[in-house]
Amino acid sequence: MATGTGARLNASTVPPPRIVLVEPQLGENIGAAARAMANCGLSDLMLVQPREEWPNPRARTMAAGATAVVDAARLAEDVPGAVADLHRVYATTARPRELAARVLTPRAAAAEMRAATARGERCGVLFGCERSGLTNDDVTHAQAVITVPLDTAYTSLNLAQAVLLVGYEWHLAGDDTPAESLEVGGQPPAAQDEVEAMLAHLVGELDAADYFRADHMRPTIVQNLRALLRRARPTEQEVRSLHGVVSALALGRQSRRRTNV
Amino acid sequence: MATGTGARLNASTVPPPRIVLVEPQLGENIGAAARAMANCGLSDLMLVQPREEWPNPRARTMAAGATAVVDAARLAEDVPGAVADLHRVYATTARPRELAARVLTPRAAAAEMRAATARGERCGVLFGCERSGLTNDDVTHAQAVITVPLDTAYTSLNLAQAVLLVGYEWHLAGDDTPAESLEVGGQPPAAQDEVEAMLAHLVGELDAADYFRADHMRPTIVQNLRALLRRARPTEQEVRSLHGVVSALALGRQSRRRTNV
Repeated sequence: MATGTGARLNASTVPPPRIVLVEPQLGENIGAAARAMANCGLSDLMLVQPREEWPNPRARTMAAGATAVVDAARLAEDVPGAVADLHRVYATTARPRELAARVLTPRAAAAEMRAATARGERCGVLFGCERSGLTNDDVTHAQAVITVPLDTAYTSLNLAQAVLLVGYEWHLAGDDTPAESLEVGGQPPAAQDEVEAMLAHLVGELDAADYFRADHMRPTIVQNLRALLRRARPTEQEVRSLHGVVSALALGRQSRRRTNV
Repeated sequence: MATGTGARLNASTVPPPRIVLVEPQLGENIGAAARAMANCGLSDLMLVQPREEWPNPRARTMAAGATAVVDAARLAEDVPGAVADLHRVYATTARPRELAARVLTPRAAAAEMRAATARGERCGVLFGCERSGLTNDDVTHAQAVITVPLDTAYTSLNLAQAVLLVGYEWHLAGDDTPAESLEVGGQPPAAQDEVEAMLAHLVGELDAADYFRADHMRPTIVQNLRALLRRARPTEQEVRSLHGVVSALALGRQSRRRTNV
Protein backbone atom coordinates (compact mmCIF):
# COMPACT_ATOMS: atom_id res chain seq x y z
CA MET A 1 0.00 0.00 0.00
CA ALA A 2 1.16 3.52 -0.68
CA THR A 3 2.00 5.66 2.31
CA GLY A 4 -0.22 8.51 3.34
CA THR A 5 0.61 11.79 1.75
CA GLY A 6 1.48 13.69 4.95
CA ALA A 7 3.26 17.00 4.57
CA ARG A 8 3.87 16.90 0.85
CA LEU A 9 6.81 19.22 0.26
CA ASN A 10 9.12 19.12 3.24
CA ALA A 11 12.68 18.82 1.96
CA SER A 12 14.13 17.95 5.35
CA THR A 13 12.33 14.63 5.51
CA VAL A 14 12.42 13.57 1.85
CA PRO A 15 13.70 10.01 1.48
CA PRO A 16 15.84 8.72 -1.41
CA PRO A 17 13.90 7.51 -4.45
CA ARG A 18 11.50 4.61 -4.19
CA ILE A 19 12.26 1.54 -6.31
CA VAL A 20 9.06 0.06 -7.76
CA LEU A 21 9.31 -3.44 -9.24
CA VAL A 22 6.29 -4.09 -11.43
CA GLU A 23 5.22 -7.75 -11.57
CA PRO A 24 8.66 -9.17 -10.71
CA GLN A 25 8.76 -12.86 -11.54
CA LEU A 26 11.33 -14.42 -9.18
CA GLY A 27 12.02 -13.86 -5.50
CA GLU A 28 15.74 -14.26 -6.17
CA ASN A 29 15.64 -11.25 -8.48
CA ILE A 30 13.80 -9.17 -5.87
CA GLY A 31 16.52 -10.09 -3.37
CA ALA A 32 19.30 -9.20 -5.79
CA ALA A 33 17.60 -5.87 -6.52
CA ALA A 34 17.35 -5.21 -2.76
CA ARG A 35 21.08 -5.87 -2.46
CA ALA A 36 21.81 -3.39 -5.26
CA MET A 37 19.57 -0.86 -3.49
CA ALA A 38 21.51 -1.27 -0.24
CA ASN A 39 24.78 -0.73 -2.14
CA CYS A 40 23.43 2.64 -3.20
CA GLY A 41 21.76 3.79 0.02
CA LEU A 42 18.20 3.13 -1.18
CA SER A 43 15.67 1.44 1.11
CA ASP A 44 12.13 2.15 -0.13
CA LEU A 45 11.09 -0.93 -2.14
CA MET A 46 7.56 -1.34 -3.49
CA LEU A 47 6.37 -4.48 -5.29
CA VAL A 48 3.43 -4.38 -7.69
CA GLN A 49 1.81 -7.81 -8.02
CA PRO A 50 4.89 -10.03 -7.61
CA ARG A 51 4.30 -13.35 -9.38
CA GLU A 52 5.38 -15.47 -6.39
CA GLU A 53 3.84 -15.19 -2.95
CA TRP A 54 5.19 -12.53 -0.61
CA PRO A 55 7.05 -12.63 1.80
CA ASN A 56 9.42 -14.84 -0.19
CA PRO A 57 12.27 -16.66 1.58
CA ARG A 58 14.34 -16.82 -1.62
CA ALA A 59 14.32 -13.03 -1.78
CA ARG A 60 15.72 -12.87 1.75
CA THR A 61 18.43 -15.43 0.99
CA MET A 62 19.55 -13.66 -2.18
CA ALA A 63 19.55 -10.28 -0.44
CA ALA A 64 22.46 -11.47 1.76
CA GLY A 65 23.29 -8.50 4.01
CA ALA A 66 20.40 -6.42 2.67
CA THR A 67 17.50 -8.36 4.22
CA ALA A 68 16.28 -5.17 5.93
CA VAL A 69 15.32 -3.79 2.52
CA VAL A 70 13.41 -6.98 1.68
CA ASP A 71 11.70 -7.06 5.07
CA ALA A 72 10.53 -3.46 4.71
CA ALA A 73 9.25 -3.93 1.14
CA ARG A 74 5.60 -3.03 0.60
CA LEU A 75 3.02 -4.38 -1.81
CA ALA A 76 0.87 -2.31 -4.15
CA GLU A 77 -2.12 -3.39 -6.23
CA ASP A 78 -1.09 -1.46 -9.30
CA VAL A 79 1.32 1.19 -10.59
CA PRO A 80 -0.89 4.19 -9.69
CA GLY A 81 -1.12 2.88 -6.12
CA ALA A 82 2.64 2.33 -5.92
CA VAL A 83 3.44 5.92 -6.88
CA ALA A 84 0.39 7.77 -5.52
CA ASP A 85 2.28 9.89 -2.98
CA LEU A 86 5.27 10.66 -5.24
CA HIS A 87 5.81 13.88 -7.18
CA ARG A 88 8.12 12.60 -9.89
CA VAL A 89 8.24 9.17 -11.46
CA TYR A 90 10.69 7.69 -13.97
CA ALA A 91 10.12 4.55 -16.05
CA THR A 92 13.10 2.42 -17.06
CA THR A 93 12.93 1.01 -20.57
CA ALA A 94 15.51 -0.71 -22.76
CA ARG A 95 13.78 0.00 -26.04
CA PRO A 96 11.98 2.93 -27.70
CA ARG A 97 8.21 3.06 -27.27
CA GLU A 98 5.37 4.31 -29.38
CA LEU A 99 4.84 6.97 -26.72
CA ALA A 100 6.27 10.45 -26.79
CA ALA A 101 8.51 10.83 -23.76
CA ARG A 102 11.55 12.62 -22.41
CA VAL A 103 14.35 10.04 -22.39
CA LEU A 104 17.15 10.53 -19.87
CA THR A 105 20.38 8.74 -19.09
CA PRO A 106 20.60 7.40 -15.51
CA ARG A 107 23.14 10.15 -14.80
CA ALA A 108 20.84 12.95 -15.98
CA ALA A 109 17.89 11.41 -14.12
CA ALA A 110 19.98 11.15 -10.95
CA ALA A 111 20.87 14.84 -11.14
CA GLU A 112 17.17 15.69 -11.62
CA MET A 113 16.12 13.50 -8.70
CA ARG A 114 18.77 15.01 -6.41
CA ALA A 115 17.53 18.50 -7.29
CA ALA A 116 13.89 17.49 -6.90
CA THR A 117 14.54 15.79 -3.55
CA ALA A 118 16.30 18.94 -2.33
CA ARG A 119 13.11 20.85 -3.18
CA GLY A 120 11.03 18.42 -1.14
CA GLU A 121 9.68 16.30 -3.99
CA ARG A 122 9.45 12.54 -3.55
CA CYS A 123 10.76 10.50 -6.49
CA GLY A 124 10.46 6.92 -7.67
CA VAL A 125 11.67 4.70 -10.47
CA LEU A 126 9.63 1.93 -12.14
CA PHE A 127 11.26 -1.30 -13.32
CA GLY A 128 9.33 -3.82 -15.40
CA CYS A 129 9.26 -7.58 -15.12
CA GLU A 130 12.30 -9.61 -16.12
CA ARG A 131 10.88 -10.96 -19.36
CA SER A 132 9.09 -8.06 -20.99
CA GLY A 133 9.72 -4.86 -19.04
CA LEU A 134 7.10 -2.21 -18.42
CA THR A 135 3.92 -1.94 -20.46
CA ASN A 136 3.20 1.27 -22.34
CA ASP A 137 0.40 1.87 -19.84
CA ASP A 138 2.90 1.67 -16.96
CA VAL A 139 5.16 4.16 -18.77
CA THR A 140 2.36 6.74 -19.05
CA HIS A 141 2.42 7.12 -15.25
CA ALA A 142 5.96 8.49 -15.43
CA GLN A 143 7.13 12.03 -16.19
CA ALA A 144 10.14 10.69 -18.07
CA VAL A 145 11.88 7.54 -19.25
CA ILE A 146 15.33 6.34 -18.19
CA THR A 147 17.30 4.29 -20.73
CA VAL A 148 20.79 3.06 -19.81
CA PRO A 149 23.29 3.72 -22.61
CA LEU A 150 24.82 0.31 -23.33
CA ASP A 151 26.60 -1.30 -26.24
CA THR A 152 23.99 -1.41 -28.97
CA ALA A 153 24.91 -5.02 -29.78
CA TYR A 154 23.77 -6.22 -26.34
CA THR A 155 21.42 -4.06 -24.30
CA SER A 156 19.76 -6.76 -22.20
CA LEU A 157 20.26 -6.07 -18.46
CA ASN A 158 18.88 -8.20 -15.68
CA LEU A 159 16.60 -6.60 -13.10
CA ALA A 160 19.19 -6.21 -10.32
CA GLN A 161 21.76 -4.76 -12.73
CA ALA A 162 19.26 -2.18 -13.97
CA VAL A 163 18.47 -1.22 -10.36
CA LEU A 164 22.21 -1.11 -9.60
CA LEU A 165 23.04 1.29 -12.44
CA VAL A 166 20.18 3.68 -11.61
CA GLY A 167 20.99 3.48 -7.89
CA TYR A 168 24.72 3.89 -8.51
CA GLU A 169 24.15 7.13 -10.41
CA TRP A 170 21.78 8.36 -7.66
CA HIS A 171 24.42 7.57 -5.04
CA LEU A 172 27.29 9.17 -6.99
CA ALA A 173 25.25 12.32 -7.63
CA GLY A 174 25.39 12.92 -3.88
CA ASP A 175 28.80 11.41 -3.18
CA ASP A 176 31.98 13.38 -2.57
CA THR A 177 34.56 10.61 -3.01
CA PRO A 178 37.53 12.27 -4.74
CA ALA A 179 38.17 10.99 -8.28
CA GLU A 180 41.68 10.12 -7.18
CA SER A 181 43.24 9.69 -3.76
CA LEU A 182 46.45 8.22 -2.44
CA GLU A 183 46.05 5.31 -0.09
CA VAL A 184 49.12 4.69 1.99
CA GLY A 185 48.05 1.85 4.27
CA GLY A 186 48.52 3.87 7.43
CA GLN A 187 52.04 4.91 6.30
CA PRO A 188 52.67 8.63 5.88
CA PRO A 189 54.06 9.67 2.50
CA ALA A 190 57.75 10.59 2.57
CA ALA A 191 58.64 14.28 2.58
CA GLN A 192 60.54 15.65 -0.39
CA ASP A 193 63.83 15.81 1.54
CA GLU A 194 63.59 12.17 2.64
CA VAL A 195 63.37 11.07 -0.99
CA GLU A 196 66.22 13.42 -1.90
CA ALA A 197 68.40 11.96 0.88
CA MET A 198 67.69 8.45 -0.35
CA LEU A 199 68.59 9.52 -3.89
CA ALA A 200 71.86 11.01 -2.60
CA HIS A 201 72.63 7.72 -0.85
CA LEU A 202 71.96 5.80 -4.08
CA VAL A 203 74.00 8.18 -6.25
CA GLY A 204 76.87 8.09 -3.73
CA GLU A 205 77.02 4.33 -3.94
CA LEU A 206 76.77 4.47 -7.75
CA ASP A 207 79.72 6.89 -7.75
CA ALA A 208 81.64 4.47 -5.50
CA ALA A 209 80.85 1.67 -7.96
CA ASP A 210 82.04 3.76 -10.94
CA TYR A 211 78.59 3.49 -12.52
CA PHE A 212 78.79 6.90 -14.25
CA ARG A 213 81.53 6.08 -16.70
CA ALA A 214 80.84 9.11 -18.90
CA ASP A 215 80.70 12.19 -16.69
CA HIS A 216 78.42 14.13 -19.01
CA MET A 217 75.68 11.49 -18.62
CA ARG A 218 75.64 11.71 -14.81
CA PRO A 219 73.22 14.69 -14.50
CA THR A 220 70.69 13.14 -16.89
CA ILE A 221 70.75 9.75 -15.18
CA VAL A 222 70.33 11.36 -11.75
CA GLN A 223 67.40 13.41 -13.06
CA ASN A 224 65.74 10.32 -14.47
CA LEU A 225 66.13 8.43 -11.19
CA ARG A 226 64.72 11.41 -9.27
CA ALA A 227 61.73 11.71 -11.63
CA LEU A 228 60.98 7.99 -11.27
CA LEU A 229 61.07 8.20 -7.47
CA ARG A 230 58.93 11.34 -7.40
CA ARG A 231 56.34 9.79 -9.71
CA ALA A 232 56.08 6.72 -7.46
CA ARG A 233 55.38 8.95 -4.40
CA PRO A 234 56.99 6.58 -1.85
CA THR A 235 55.97 6.39 1.80
CA GLU A 236 58.45 6.96 4.64
CA GLN A 237 58.59 3.18 5.12
CA GLU A 238 59.38 2.59 1.45
CA VAL A 239 62.19 5.17 1.56
CA ARG A 240 63.68 3.29 4.54
CA SER A 241 63.39 0.04 2.57
CA LEU A 242 65.16 1.60 -0.41
CA HIS A 243 68.01 2.83 1.84
CA GLY A 244 68.33 -0.77 3.02
CA VAL A 245 68.28 -2.13 -0.52
CA VAL A 246 71.04 0.27 -1.63
CA SER A 247 73.15 -0.50 1.46
CA ALA A 248 72.74 -4.24 0.96
CA LEU A 249 73.81 -4.05 -2.68
CA ALA A 250 76.82 -1.87 -1.82
CA LEU A 251 77.80 -4.07 1.09
CA GLY A 252 77.45 -7.22 -1.01
CA ARG A 253 79.72 -5.72 -3.62
CA GLN A 254 82.32 -4.82 -0.99
CA SER A 255 82.16 -8.34 0.48
CA ARG A 256 82.61 -9.84 -2.96
CA ARG A 257 85.57 -7.58 -3.58
CA ARG A 258 87.12 -8.60 -0.29
CA THR A 259 86.52 -12.25 -1.11
CA ASN A 260 87.86 -11.90 -4.61
CA VAL A 261 91.02 -10.03 -3.52
CA MET B 1 47.98 -17.65 -22.12
CA ALA B 2 48.82 -14.00 -22.76
CA THR B 3 48.92 -12.84 -26.35
CA GLY B 4 52.18 -12.06 -28.05
CA THR B 5 53.29 -8.49 -27.69
CA GLY B 6 53.21 -7.58 -31.38
CA ALA B 7 53.40 -3.88 -32.26
CA ARG B 8 53.21 -2.44 -28.79
CA LEU B 9 51.96 1.10 -29.25
CA ASN B 10 49.66 1.28 -32.24
CA ALA B 11 46.60 3.29 -31.24
CA SER B 12 44.60 2.26 -34.30
CA THR B 13 44.43 -1.38 -33.22
CA VAL B 14 44.14 -1.01 -29.44
CA PRO B 15 41.24 -3.05 -28.06
CA PRO B 16 39.00 -2.09 -25.12
CA PRO B 17 40.33 -3.06 -21.69
CA ARG B 18 40.87 -6.70 -20.79
CA ILE B 19 38.84 -8.07 -17.88
CA VAL B 20 40.96 -10.42 -15.75
CA LEU B 21 39.07 -12.61 -13.24
CA VAL B 22 41.54 -13.97 -10.69
CA GLU B 23 40.59 -17.39 -9.30
CA PRO B 24 36.85 -17.05 -9.95
CA GLN B 25 34.96 -19.69 -8.01
CA LEU B 26 31.75 -20.35 -9.96
CA GLY B 27 31.11 -20.75 -13.67
CA GLU B 28 27.79 -18.94 -13.24
CA ASN B 29 29.62 -15.85 -12.03
CA ILE B 30 32.01 -15.96 -14.99
CA GLY B 31 28.98 -16.13 -17.30
CA ALA B 32 27.29 -13.21 -15.54
CA ALA B 33 30.51 -11.19 -15.77
CA ALA B 34 30.72 -11.99 -19.51
CA ARG B 35 27.18 -10.70 -19.91
CA ALA B 36 28.07 -7.46 -18.15
CA MET B 37 31.12 -7.16 -20.42
CA ALA B 38 28.95 -7.54 -23.53
CA ASN B 39 26.61 -4.83 -22.20
CA CYS B 40 29.59 -2.48 -22.17
CA GLY B 41 31.31 -3.43 -25.42
CA LEU B 42 34.11 -5.41 -23.75
CA SER B 43 35.19 -8.77 -25.15
CA ASP B 44 38.70 -9.63 -23.89
CA LEU B 45 38.20 -11.98 -20.91
CA MET B 46 41.14 -13.67 -19.17
CA LEU B 47 40.70 -16.21 -16.37
CA VAL B 48 43.49 -16.86 -13.88
CA GLN B 49 43.14 -20.31 -12.33
CA PRO B 50 39.33 -20.64 -12.27
CA ARG B 51 38.32 -23.04 -9.49
CA GLU B 52 36.04 -25.13 -11.72
CA GLU B 53 37.18 -26.80 -14.92
CA TRP B 54 37.17 -24.75 -18.09
CA PRO B 55 35.30 -24.65 -20.52
CA ASN B 56 32.34 -24.56 -18.13
CA PRO B 57 28.81 -25.11 -19.49
CA ARG B 58 27.26 -23.18 -16.59
CA ALA B 59 29.22 -20.09 -17.65
CA ARG B 60 27.79 -20.37 -21.18
CA THR B 61 24.23 -20.80 -19.88
CA MET B 62 24.47 -17.80 -17.55
CA ALA B 63 26.03 -15.65 -20.27
CA ALA B 64 22.74 -15.79 -22.23
CA GLY B 65 23.34 -13.73 -25.39
CA ALA B 66 26.99 -13.14 -24.53
CA THR B 67 28.34 -16.65 -25.10
CA ALA B 68 30.86 -15.29 -27.63
CA VAL B 69 32.70 -13.58 -24.76
CA VAL B 70 32.77 -16.84 -22.79
CA ASP B 71 33.88 -18.86 -25.79
CA ALA B 72 36.75 -16.47 -26.50
CA ALA B 73 37.94 -16.35 -22.87
CA ARG B 74 41.56 -17.32 -22.32
CA LEU B 75 43.30 -18.95 -19.38
CA ALA B 76 46.41 -17.65 -17.64
CA GLU B 77 48.60 -19.39 -15.09
CA ASP B 78 48.99 -16.33 -12.90
CA VAL B 79 48.40 -12.58 -12.75
CA PRO B 80 51.74 -11.61 -14.35
CA GLY B 81 50.95 -13.91 -17.28
CA ALA B 82 47.43 -12.48 -17.63
CA VAL B 83 48.68 -8.91 -17.94
CA ALA B 84 52.10 -9.43 -19.55
CA ASP B 85 51.33 -7.58 -22.79
CA LEU B 86 49.37 -4.71 -21.17
CA HIS B 87 50.75 -1.25 -20.43
CA ARG B 88 48.37 -0.22 -17.67
CA VAL B 89 46.65 -2.40 -15.10
CA TYR B 90 44.03 -1.53 -12.47
CA ALA B 91 43.11 -3.66 -9.47
CA THR B 92 39.57 -3.50 -8.08
CA THR B 93 39.32 -3.60 -4.30
CA ALA B 94 36.44 -2.95 -1.92
CA ARG B 95 38.58 -2.22 1.12
CA PRO B 96 41.77 -0.28 1.89
CA ARG B 97 45.03 -2.24 1.77
CA GLU B 98 48.30 -2.03 3.62
CA LEU B 99 49.85 -1.04 0.31
CA ALA B 100 50.46 2.49 -0.88
CA ALA B 101 48.42 2.97 -4.05
CA ARG B 102 46.61 5.53 -6.16
CA VAL B 103 42.90 4.91 -5.60
CA LEU B 104 40.53 5.92 -8.38
CA THR B 105 36.77 5.90 -8.84
CA PRO B 106 35.58 3.80 -11.81
CA ARG B 107 34.75 7.07 -13.58
CA ALA B 108 38.25 8.50 -13.16
CA ALA B 109 39.82 5.17 -14.16
CA ALA B 110 37.60 5.03 -17.26
CA ALA B 111 38.76 8.48 -18.34
CA GLU B 112 42.39 7.42 -17.82
CA MET B 113 41.89 4.20 -19.78
CA ARG B 114 40.20 6.04 -22.66
CA ALA B 115 43.12 8.47 -22.85
CA ALA B 116 45.68 5.67 -22.57
CA THR B 117 43.95 3.59 -25.24
CA ALA B 118 43.94 6.60 -27.56
CA ARG B 119 47.73 6.78 -27.08
CA GLY B 120 48.08 3.12 -28.05
CA GLU B 121 48.39 1.64 -24.54
CA ARG B 122 46.62 -1.62 -23.75
CA CYS B 123 44.72 -1.62 -20.44
CA GLY B 124 43.27 -4.26 -18.15
CA VAL B 125 41.34 -4.52 -14.90
CA LEU B 126 41.83 -7.24 -12.27
CA PHE B 127 38.88 -8.61 -10.26
CA GLY B 128 39.43 -10.94 -7.31
CA CYS B 129 37.54 -14.06 -6.36
CA GLU B 130 34.00 -13.80 -5.04
CA ARG B 131 34.84 -14.57 -1.42
CA SER B 132 37.99 -12.66 -0.65
CA GLY B 133 38.90 -10.41 -3.56
CA LEU B 134 42.44 -9.84 -4.77
CA THR B 135 45.49 -10.59 -2.65
CA ASN B 136 47.93 -7.80 -1.86
CA ASP B 137 50.39 -9.55 -4.16
CA ASP B 138 47.89 -9.34 -7.03
CA VAL B 139 47.40 -5.64 -6.33
CA THR B 140 51.13 -4.92 -6.65
CA HIS B 141 50.93 -5.82 -10.34
CA ALA B 142 48.62 -2.84 -10.94
CA GLN B 143 49.51 0.82 -11.46
CA ALA B 144 46.42 1.90 -9.51
CA VAL B 145 43.43 0.66 -7.55
CA ILE B 146 39.76 1.13 -8.48
CA THR B 147 37.28 1.31 -5.61
CA VAL B 148 33.58 1.81 -6.38
CA PRO B 149 32.03 4.51 -4.18
CA LEU B 150 29.03 2.82 -2.56
CA ASP B 151 26.94 3.36 0.55
CA THR B 152 29.38 2.81 3.40
CA ALA B 153 26.82 0.68 5.23
CA TYR B 154 26.87 -1.97 2.48
CA THR B 155 29.80 -2.10 0.06
CA SER B 156 29.64 -5.79 -0.91
CA LEU B 157 29.23 -6.17 -4.69
CA ASN B 158 29.06 -9.47 -6.50
CA LEU B 159 31.59 -10.17 -9.24
CA ALA B 160 29.33 -9.44 -12.22
CA GLN B 161 28.10 -6.20 -10.65
CA ALA B 162 31.67 -5.00 -10.09
CA VAL B 163 32.50 -5.82 -13.72
CA LEU B 164 29.30 -4.05 -14.81
CA LEU B 165 30.07 -0.79 -12.98
CA VAL B 166 33.66 -0.62 -14.26
CA GLY B 167 32.53 -1.55 -17.78
CA TYR B 168 29.61 0.88 -17.68
CA GLU B 169 31.93 3.79 -16.86
CA TRP B 170 34.32 2.67 -19.64
CA HIS B 171 31.42 2.55 -22.09
CA LEU B 172 29.97 5.92 -21.02
CA ALA B 173 33.39 7.59 -21.24
CA GLY B 174 33.26 6.93 -25.00
CA ASP B 175 29.51 7.24 -25.48
CA ASP B 176 27.75 10.24 -26.97
CA THR B 177 24.17 9.50 -25.90
CA PRO B 178 22.64 12.88 -25.05
CA ALA B 179 21.75 13.30 -21.37
CA GLU B 180 18.21 14.06 -22.45
CA SER B 181 16.36 13.43 -25.68
CA LEU B 182 12.76 13.45 -26.77
CA GLU B 183 11.42 10.16 -28.00
CA VAL B 184 8.30 10.56 -30.08
CA GLY B 185 7.57 7.02 -31.22
CA GLY B 186 7.96 7.84 -34.89
CA GLN B 187 5.64 10.85 -34.53
CA PRO B 188 7.12 14.23 -35.37
CA PRO B 189 6.78 16.87 -32.65
CA ALA B 190 4.17 19.52 -33.39
CA ALA B 191 5.38 22.88 -34.65
CA GLN B 192 4.75 25.93 -32.47
CA ASP B 193 1.90 27.17 -34.67
CA GLU B 194 0.08 23.82 -34.55
CA VAL B 195 -0.01 23.99 -30.76
CA GLU B 196 -1.09 27.64 -30.94
CA ALA B 197 -3.93 26.75 -33.32
CA MET B 198 -5.07 23.98 -30.97
CA LEU B 199 -4.98 26.43 -28.07
CA ALA B 200 -7.05 28.92 -30.10
CA HIS B 201 -9.59 26.16 -30.79
CA LEU B 202 -9.77 25.35 -27.07
CA VAL B 203 -10.05 28.99 -25.99
CA GLY B 204 -12.72 29.62 -28.64
CA GLU B 205 -14.84 26.79 -27.26
CA LEU B 206 -14.23 28.00 -23.69
CA ASP B 207 -15.45 31.44 -24.76
CA ALA B 208 -18.53 29.84 -26.31
CA ALA B 209 -19.14 27.99 -23.04
CA ASP B 210 -18.81 31.21 -21.00
CA TYR B 211 -15.91 29.70 -19.06
CA PHE B 212 -14.11 33.03 -18.53
CA ARG B 213 -16.66 34.62 -16.24
CA ALA B 214 -14.27 37.34 -15.03
CA ASP B 215 -12.73 38.99 -18.08
CA HIS B 216 -9.58 40.04 -16.23
CA MET B 217 -8.67 36.39 -15.51
CA ARG B 218 -8.85 35.35 -19.17
CA PRO B 219 -5.26 36.32 -20.16
CA THR B 220 -3.76 34.53 -17.15
CA ILE B 221 -5.73 31.34 -17.70
CA VAL B 222 -4.81 31.30 -21.40
CA GLN B 223 -1.14 31.78 -20.50
CA ASN B 224 -1.26 28.90 -18.02
CA LEU B 225 -2.87 26.59 -20.57
CA ARG B 226 -0.27 27.58 -23.18
CA ALA B 227 2.60 27.00 -20.74
CA LEU B 228 1.23 23.56 -19.81
CA LEU B 229 0.94 22.57 -23.48
CA ARG B 230 4.41 23.89 -24.31
CA ARG B 231 5.95 22.03 -21.38
CA ALA B 232 4.36 18.76 -22.52
CA ARG B 233 5.84 19.20 -26.03
CA PRO B 234 3.04 17.37 -27.87
CA THR B 235 3.48 15.51 -31.15
CA GLU B 236 1.47 16.36 -34.27
CA GLN B 237 -0.68 13.31 -33.55
CA GLU B 238 -1.35 14.43 -29.99
CA VAL B 239 -2.37 17.90 -31.20
CA ARG B 240 -4.86 16.26 -33.57
CA SER B 241 -6.17 14.16 -30.65
CA LEU B 242 -6.59 17.26 -28.51
CA HIS B 243 -8.52 19.02 -31.32
CA GLY B 244 -10.80 15.98 -31.34
CA VAL B 245 -11.18 16.01 -27.55
CA VAL B 246 -12.14 19.71 -27.54
CA SER B 247 -14.58 19.23 -30.43
CA ALA B 248 -16.18 16.20 -28.76
CA LEU B 249 -16.67 18.08 -25.49
CA ALA B 250 -18.11 21.12 -27.30
CA LEU B 251 -20.36 18.99 -29.47
CA GLY B 252 -21.56 16.97 -26.49
CA ARG B 253 -22.48 20.18 -24.70
CA GLN B 254 -24.37 21.42 -27.75
CA SER B 255 -26.23 18.08 -28.02
CA ARG B 256 -27.15 18.22 -24.34
CA ARG B 257 -28.36 21.79 -24.78
CA ARG B 258 -30.50 20.77 -27.73
CA THR B 259 -31.87 17.83 -25.78
CA ASN B 260 -32.53 19.90 -22.69
CA VAL B 261 -34.32 22.66 -24.60
